Amino acid sequence: MTNHFQYTLEGQDGRARAGRFTTPHGDLLTPVFAPVGTAATVKAVTPAQLADLGASLVLANTYHLYLRPGDQLVAEMGGLHEFMRWDGPLLTDSGGFQVFSLGENSKVSDDGVIFKSHIDGSTHHFTPERAIQIQENLGADIIMAFDQCADPYDHAYSQRAAQRTHAWLRRCVDAKTRSDQALFGIVQGGIHEDLRQQSAEFVAGMDTPGIAIGGLSVGETKEEMHAILDVVDPILPQDKPRYLMGVGTVEDLVNGVARGIDVFDCVLPTRMGRNHAAMLRSGGRLNIKNAPFAKDESPIDPGCGCYTCRTFSRAYIRHLIAAREMLSATLLSIHNLFTLVNLAKEMRTSILAGTFADDFSDLLA
Amino acid sequence: MTNHFQYTLEGQDGRARAGRFTTPHGDLLTPVFAPVGTAATVKAVTPAQLADLGASLVLANTYHLYLRPGDQLVAEMGGLHEFMRWDGPLLTDSGGFQVFSLGENSKVSDDGVIFKSHIDGSTHHFTPERAIQIQENLGADIIMAFDQCADPYDHAYSQRAAQRTHAWLRRCVDAKTRSDQALFGIVQGGIHEDLRQQSAEFVAGMDTPGIAIGGLSVGETKEEMHAILDVVDPILPQDKPRYLMGVGTVEDLVNGVARGIDVFDCVLPTRMGRNHAAMLRSGGRLNIKNAPFAKDESPIDPGCGCYTCRTFSRAYIRHLIAAREMLSATLLSIHNLFTLVNLAKEMRTSILAGTFADDFSDLLA
Repeated sequence: MTNHFQYTLEGQDGRARAGRFTTPHGDLLTPVFAPVGTAATVKAVTPAQLADLGASLVLANTYHLYLRPGDQLVAEMGGLHEFMRWDGPLLTDSGGFQVFSLGENSKVSDDGVIFKSHIDGSTHHFTPERAIQIQENLGADIIMAFDQCADPYDHAYSQRAAQRTHAWLRRCVDAKTRSDQALFGIVQGGIHEDLRQQSAEFVAGMDTPGIAIGGLSVGETKEEMHAILDVVDPILPQDKPRYLMGVGTVEDLVNGVARGIDVFDCVLPTRMGRNHAAMLRSGGRLNIKNAPFAKDESPIDPGCGCYTCRTFSRAYIRHLIAAREMLSATLLSIHNLFTLVNLAKEMRTSILAGTFADDFSDLLA
Repeated sequence: MTNHFQYTLEGQDGRARAGRFTTPHGDLLTPVFAPVGTAATVKAVTPAQLADLGASLVLANTYHLYLRPGDQLVAEMGGLHEFMRWDGPLLTDSGGFQVFSLGENSKVSDDGVIFKSHIDGSTHHFTPERAIQIQENLGADIIMAFDQCADPYDHAYSQRAAQRTHAWLRRCVDAKTRSDQALFGIVQGGIHEDLRQQSAEFVAGMDTPGIAIGGLSVGETKEEMHAILDVVDPILPQDKPRYLMGVGTVEDLVNGVARGIDVFDCVLPTRMGRNHAAMLRSGGRLNIKNAPFAKDESPIDPGCGCYTCRTFSRAYIRHLIAAREMLSATLLSIHNLFTLVNLAKEMRTSILAGTFADDFSDLLA
C-alpha cells in the first residue's frame, strides 16, 4: 500500500523547520497556516478567493458538520472535498474541543461524551469510535483523535483528561479503517510541564503520521504557551509534522515556528474580519471602523500583497463597515487570512535560507 | 471638445436594438443590465467577481452616498470609480426615487424636496441643482435628472409630477457643469398613455445624450408596462440609448428589449440572492432553501455558465442557507447577476443575427 502521508524535513534553522507533507490532495509545504471553514465554508470567502490568497490546507469542524448537514449527507454528496469544492488538502478536528466547550450541556465519561446540540437541544453521544466514523464519512485528508480539553490550570483534572485522551487515542487508532486519511494524535496536559512531557512521550510512541498539540491558546499566557512548546519539541519525532491547534496570530505563528511547529489553524482571521479588525504583518491589529480612517487613502497594511490591499483604501472599507455592508467582512477576511498564510510562506523561505532568527527578530519572544 | 457619449445603433431586429454607447470609462454594448451598488458596493460581491461575471455598467445611489459617506468625501477620495474601485462605466440615479419613497418623511414643492434621513432623522433639502451637484461630486459617467415619481394610477397627480419633472430637467441641464458626464432626462406619466406621450416628446426635445423611462415596475401590471413602452418607443430618437429604470427580471428584460429598451438596472438579483432565491434563465425563480434540494447534486440552473453553477451543487448552497452562512448570499448574487448580465448579451447576439423573435419566443409577451 502506498503511504500517502510522507513528511520530508527539507530544512532547519535553529529549531524552526521547513518541510513537505504529502496528502492525497497535494503536498503541504510547511510551515503552513490553515484557514478555518467551520461549516464547510471559510466564512464570507469563496474557494476561488481562498486559492487566490494562497491557502493550501483548510480545516472544517466535525461537530458542526455532524449536526448540520450531517456527515452521512456529506458522504452521499461525495465527501467534504466535493461538497465544499476545496480540491486541496482538508483537515477535520474530532469535535472534542467543541463538545467540551458546551459546558453544562456536555457530560464526559471514560466511554465518551453525551452532549446537547447548540442548534436544537437534541442529545447526542460522541465516542472515539464515533468521532472517527464521522470523520471517515467527511473524508478529510488529515483527521484528529478524539481528545479531552480540560481546565489548563487544574493539575489533577489535566492529568485525568490527558490519561483519558491517551486511552481514546488507542481506540481511535483501532477504529480507523480508511488508508487515505492520516490520523494525528493530540498531546494534552494543560500548562503543566510534567503532564505535557508524559503526554508527548505517549503520543510519540503511538507512531501516528502527525502529532498535534491541543489545549493551548485557551487563556494561558504567552510565556506559559512557549514553555509548553519548549518541553514538547525535543520529545516529538523530527520526521513527522507538528500541528499547534487553534493558534493564529502573527506573533504566535512566529514563536510557534521558532519552537518546531509546522501547522497552525485559527478562526481569528475571519472572526476579526467580521468584527472590523485587520491583522498587521508587523503584529497587532487595526480597527478600521475608527474615525481617523474616514479619509485614509492608504491600504489596510501598506506593503501587503493581498487583493484587498492591492485594490481598496482604508476609507472605502471603513465606509463599508459604517454602512453595514457584507463586503467589509469579505475584504477584511481575505486580508487577515493572506497575512497569516503568507507569513507562513515567508518563514519557510527564511528557514530554507538560514535567516529565520534575523528575519523575524522583531516578533520573536 | 470631444463628445464622450456617442451612441451607435449597430443592429435592429424588429424594434429590438443592438448598440454601442461610448463613455469615458469604456464602451457599453447594449442591451445591457447594470447591477446595483447602492452604497458604492454591489452587496456581497467584489468588483473582481463583478468583472468575472461579465458586468460592464454598475449603478450607485445618490441618496445613500450623499448621506453616507457623503458626496464630498467621495470627491476627496478621487470620485466614485476610484473609491469603490470599479474602473468601468458607472451610473448614478438622482436620489429622486429614494426621496419620494420616504413617504411622510418627504415634502415636495416646485423648488425641490425636503426630507428626513432614514439613518438619523436629520433634515435635508434636494433640488434639481443640488442633485446635479452631488452627482458631479460622485463623478459617474451617466447621471440622472431629478424627477418626481408619483402614484402611477392617479392621472391628475401623475400629470403634475410629470410637469414638475420637465421643469426640473431644464434646471438640471442648466446646473450641469462637467463635460465628462452624460445627463439623461427621465420620462414620467404613470400608466397614462397621454401623459407618457407628452413626457416622451418633452424629454426627446431636450436633446439629452440618453433618455430614461422612470416610474415603471412600481406595482402596475406587465400589460400596463408594455403598453407604456409601446407608446414611448416611437417617440424617442433612434440615435440615443433608452434606459428602463429599476427593471430586472428575465421576462422584463426580454420584453423591454422587444420594445426598444437598451439599458436596465435592478436590485432584484442581489436582494433575491440574500433571500435564498435563484433566478432561472428560462424565467421564474427557485427557492434553494426548500427541502427537496438537500441532496440535489445539480447546479442551481443547469446550463448556466456562472462561477456558482460551474462549481457548487444545490445541496451545498442549501446547506449554506440553513447554516446562515454569508457565502450563500455571495454565490446566489453572483448567479442571479450573471443570469441577467448574460441574458442581455445573448439578446445582443440574437439581434445582430436577426433571430431575436425566434430565440426568445418562449419569453416574449
